[in-house]
Amino acid sequence: MKRIDRIIAITEILLSHPNQLFPLGVFADRFQLAKSTISEDLMEIKSRLSLTKRGFLETIPGAAGGVRYLPAISETEATDFLEQLAQTLNTSDRILPGGFLYMADLLYDPKIIRILGLIFASIFRPKKPDAVVTIETKGIPLALMTADSLGIPAVVVRHGNKVTEGSSVSINYISGSSKRIQTMSLARKALDTGKRVLIIDDFIKAGGTAKGIVSLMHEFDAEVVGLGFLMEDTLWNACRLVTDYLSLLQYGDPSTDKPIIKAKTHVLRQNEF
Amino acid sequence: MKRIDRIIAITEILLSHPNQLFPLGVFADRFQLAKSTISEDLMEIKSRLSLTKRGFLETIPGAAGGVRYLPAISETEATDFLEQLAQTLNTSDRILPGGFLYMADLLYDPKIIRILGLIFASIFRPKKPDAVVTIETKGIPLALMTADSLGIPAVVVRHGNKVTEGSSVSINYISGSSKRIQTMSLARKALDTGKRVLIIDDFIKAGGTAKGIVSLMHEFDAEVVGLGFLMEDTLWNACRLVTDYLSLLQYGDPSTDKPIIKAKTHVLRQNEF
Repeated sequence: MKRIDRIIAITEILLSHPNQLFPLGVFADRFQLAKSTISEDLMEIKSRLSLTKRGFLETIPGAAGGVRYLPAISETEATDFLEQLAQTLNTSDRILPGGFLYMADLLYDPKIIRILGLIFASIFRPKKPDAVVTIETKGIPLALMTADSLGIPAVVVRHGNKVTEGSSVSINYISGSSKRIQTMSLARKALDTGKRVLIIDDFIKAGGTAKGIVSLMHEFDAEVVGLGFLMEDTLWNACRLVTDYLSLLQYGDPSTDKPIIKAKTHVLRQNEF
Repeated sequence: MKRIDRIIAITEILLSHPNQLFPLGVFADRFQLAKSTISEDLMEIKSRLSLTKRGFLETIPGAAGGVRYLPAISETEATDFLEQLAQTLNTSDRILPGGFLYMADLLYDPKIIRILGLIFASIFRPKKPDAVVTIETKGIPLALMTADSLGIPAVVVRHGNKVTEGSSVSINYISGSSKRIQTMSLARKALDTGKRVLIIDDFIKAGGTAKGIVSLMHEFDAEVVGLGFLMEDTLWNACRLVTDYLSLLQYGDPSTDKPIIKAKTHVLRQNEF
């Protein structure tokens, strides 16, 4: 096999199996070559991929080591994407009766969600989460794509108390915006105790739901290593129930009171990746 | 730039932007080369990728043409994966009180769902769907990954009648297994009329929910081009409310009445890809 074909093959294997560790021996066996030759191929791929920052090769030395492809996104690409997304949300006819913002179409569009997942993954990867936790329904795609980019499972908290998942932990919480008492629950089987969890959701208003998820995580002895939201509603800035979170877009502008969406690109600069 | 670096760069761009059409001019401009040289590079990549069948390059001729990477999976890899998945479902302690099968952990694990999405995409791509439709909650990751592999949006039907998405269409349906009257709804904005839709969900028992989604699709003048389920419950084989569907696993064995999970690998052979 020509070197160029081998390099295409290795690139394909790594990129189509993100986050999966391949010992060098796997490639050496498959192509019947010395590990040193494979190692040279990998250096070539690694230095080339580092230029686009759309992901990078991580090399882990030692007997249990190998190489894996970690999906990522550059700050420039992320900034452009968020500004474009804010523009899309502003230009279309998206404010519904009651002041709700319609964005379900974007939240279920893989092209959009895939990039948002890469942004959250690039920001939160240094926190080394074991799982991404969200609550049904609209946060699921966002959480799933973030989990996919990080190579970890997603965990979905249910509203109410569903019976089909065995013994579960339920908590009551007060929705910060509607002030109603609600219930959320998670199956015991869904999350082992003592894990590091990243909470991801589509929207944060007063943060009652987010605070509820944090409380639920305490029941699983989990450490919450980050909270990420696609959008925050600035109307609730003064009385939000959680503080240490990150959001990529904001809805409303406290200075003008207009329902305008802005990209919070400074968040990307602060979390340089 | 060396040819080998250029080929790695092109492979990376194509694989990290699945389903996106790149005119040859994009690469010619970026690398300051003639289109004929780029074309030779693409032939090299195309023939190499065709060997693993984990995806393939599609070349579209003409002025509006270009090249795109379509994710896929080989029948062999899909067969092995489904047999392994059935084994996982059989060996663990997954039968819950009430006879429910616990599989939420697998349904939210990107490593599992990504492959299942590739399998559904490989099977249903020839039907040329415009959107993948599912109903909340557990079918969402499956639908999303299928949509991602096909490069089309997902659409999520809601239980009940949620108020935050503008005017919507609701239908009542009778759950085939519980015989209760239920409601499902979809925002008018969520799906344009006259589309070709693929329905994807995690589980089919009597098929009342599936039949409900098909009825709802008629309200959007949509053509249902396929129905795919991860698992069917064989208990309802004799009286299922939908017939023209496909499932990858089966729960229960009519001949022995045991709660065993089997991979329906003949489905893969029948839908050769």
